[in-house]
Amino acid sequence: MQESIKIAAPATISNVGPGFDILGFSTELISDVIELRIRKGERNIIIENKGRRWATPTNPIENTAGIAVFEFLNFVKANFDVIIRIEKKIGIGTGLGSSAASAAAVVFGLNEMLKTKLDENELIKIAIKGEKASAGAEHADNIAPSLLGGFTLIKGYSPLEIVKIENHLNFFVLILLPDIVINTSKARKILKKTIPMNKVIEQSGNLASLIYAISKGELELFFNSFKDSIIVPQRKKLIPFYDELQEHAFNKGARAFGMSGAGPATIALTESKELAKTIGTELKLFLKTKNISANIFVTKLSLSGTHLIK
Amino acid sequence: MQESIKIAAPATISNVGPGFDILGFSTELISDVIELRIRKGERNIIIENKGRRWATPTNPIENTAGIAVFEFLNFVKANFDVIIRIEKKIGIGTGLGSSAASAAAVVFGLNEMLKTKLDENELIKIAIKGEKASAGAEHADNIAPSLLGGFTLIKGYSPLEIVKIENHLNFFVLILLPDIVINTSKARKILKKTIPMNKVIEQSGNLASLIYAISKGELELFFNSFKDSIIVPQRKKLIPFYDELQEHAFNKGARAFGMSGAGPATIALTESKELAKTIGTELKLFLKTKNISANIFVTKLSLSGTHLIK
Repeated sequence: MQESIKIAAPATISNVGPGFDILGFSTELISDVIELRIRKGERNIIIENKGRRWATPTNPIENTAGIAVFEFLNFVKANFDVIIRIEKKIGIGTGLGSSAASAAAVVFGLNEMLKTKLDENELIKIAIKGEKASAGAEHADNIAPSLLGGFTLIKGYSPLEIVKIENHLNFFVLILLPDIVINTSKARKILKKTIPMNKVIEQSGNLASLIYAISKGELELFFNSFKDSIIVPQRKKLIPFYDELQEHAFNKGARAFGMSGAGPATIALTESKELAKTIGTELKLFLKTKNISANIFVTKLSLSGTHLIK
Repeated sequence: MQESIKIAAPATISNVGPGFDILGFSTELISDVIELRIRKGERNIIIENKGRRWATPTNPIENTAGIAVFEFLNFVKANFDVIIRIEKKIGIGTGLGSSAASAAAVVFGLNEMLKTKLDENELIKIAIKGEKASAGAEHADNIAPSLLGGFTLIKGYSPLEIVKIENHLNFFVLILLPDIVINTSKARKILKKTIPMNKVIEQSGNLASLIYAISKGELELFFNSFKDSIIVPQRKKLIPFYDELQEHAFNKGARAFGMSGAGPATIALTESKELAKTIGTELKLFLKTKNISANIFVTKLSLSGTHLIK
């Protein structure tokens, strides 16, 4: 049995366009690098942070990764102490699936170390319990793509059914991350409990054509279907100047625009890397004039999910 | 210019599974055979019924086909009298797109006769206006598949955007048509104006995986995604013994069950033609014990839509 292992888990975009709670994709941006060590013991979980910028709670029951480790050990009935060394490349509460990446990394890592051979669905189910602690709801649309890579679809939650979409599209993602904090469970609470039927139909049409576009590799239709009639209209007020950012992005040539997860990250999709960078610089400058600092990342859809590193 | 033409338009299944108002497919069952004759004139529209069993209104402004002809002539600015001879193979108000088939047939036929070369989108837009007169709402999920064949997706209604799904699946459709009448606009009125968010998410997951399954030709996933969490639960009370019919069908081996359009037709999907027939006989007998007579049809998804016949 290996006694130490190092895992990288990608940042993910969830709530993709009209796919609230059901559609996410993996990016080439690494969110978390996690080192796991195990030793015989009584399921003591020790959390260490590498770097202080985005330190996570060291109390395991307050930490996504800690809870996921506990759930994993419980599921496979293994008695070990686990030391989790977390290096966050992207902060928590960004909308880029940071807590999901932690949970994905530890379940993936333990499955490797303990040779437990749990399948993807089982790993996701365990990781979700960690995620629930941070988001306040069981949602899998960051965990599934972070673990599996590519686009993943949550067909249903009870029972959990994940569909990995096999085809992929060639586009670039500008991520604009303004320096503000949105609490995920608060972002969930502002959502209305019921939705007008005409919005449901509008969203369904775009969702269906978005999925068709991804399946067939039709980039033009993908961009044109990347619209959210239900969630973004309710949540965009959480992001300062959302409408202006979207307008600037479209004026500069972005092909789609939206929130990532529950924000504050927003994304603009383009056909070229250069254009994504240009739009990023523009949006960052715009926010600066409003006294809001921001980070930008330019990345791509990634086919690989959580993986071992040397 | 041709002076007489004969057109067949297929019966269609709309509101397919979780795809209310946006997804329909064409069947091998012919709904309408329409003969069109034109002569120079002042846009007089004369409607004749072939057969009396399902006679349609002869006043053009009360007749789907009549309105569609009028809208067509108006759109292309042509002055002709049109004689429409309608032979209905399937009655109106069945949930099998009978009025849509009439509208599809006449716009297709006039486009051929007058060599007006309108594209599919334009034809659908014109035909919808006829359909609106009968259903009380502009919906295209019967007209589009009746005209184009196969599975069609209504991406959006304003502007109207149709996506023809290229891949197809090999399954059989049992159509059970009980001898009762449901008024389409009434069936629309009983629908609630707002939908609980958790149902929207449930429906989205199934819709997305259904579309993925159709696109990839994954029959098993298609059957498993053929669920409607929103519309059928509200409308099934319009169909006597809906739950019992569904239970019988599943017990006999049906892989999916649902309403067609706004009913009263229900459909059961199977992998074999024989099984579809067996289930049909069973369900028909069951309804007979409840003193309800019914017709059954066994058919398939058809790739051809509206077409000329000799």
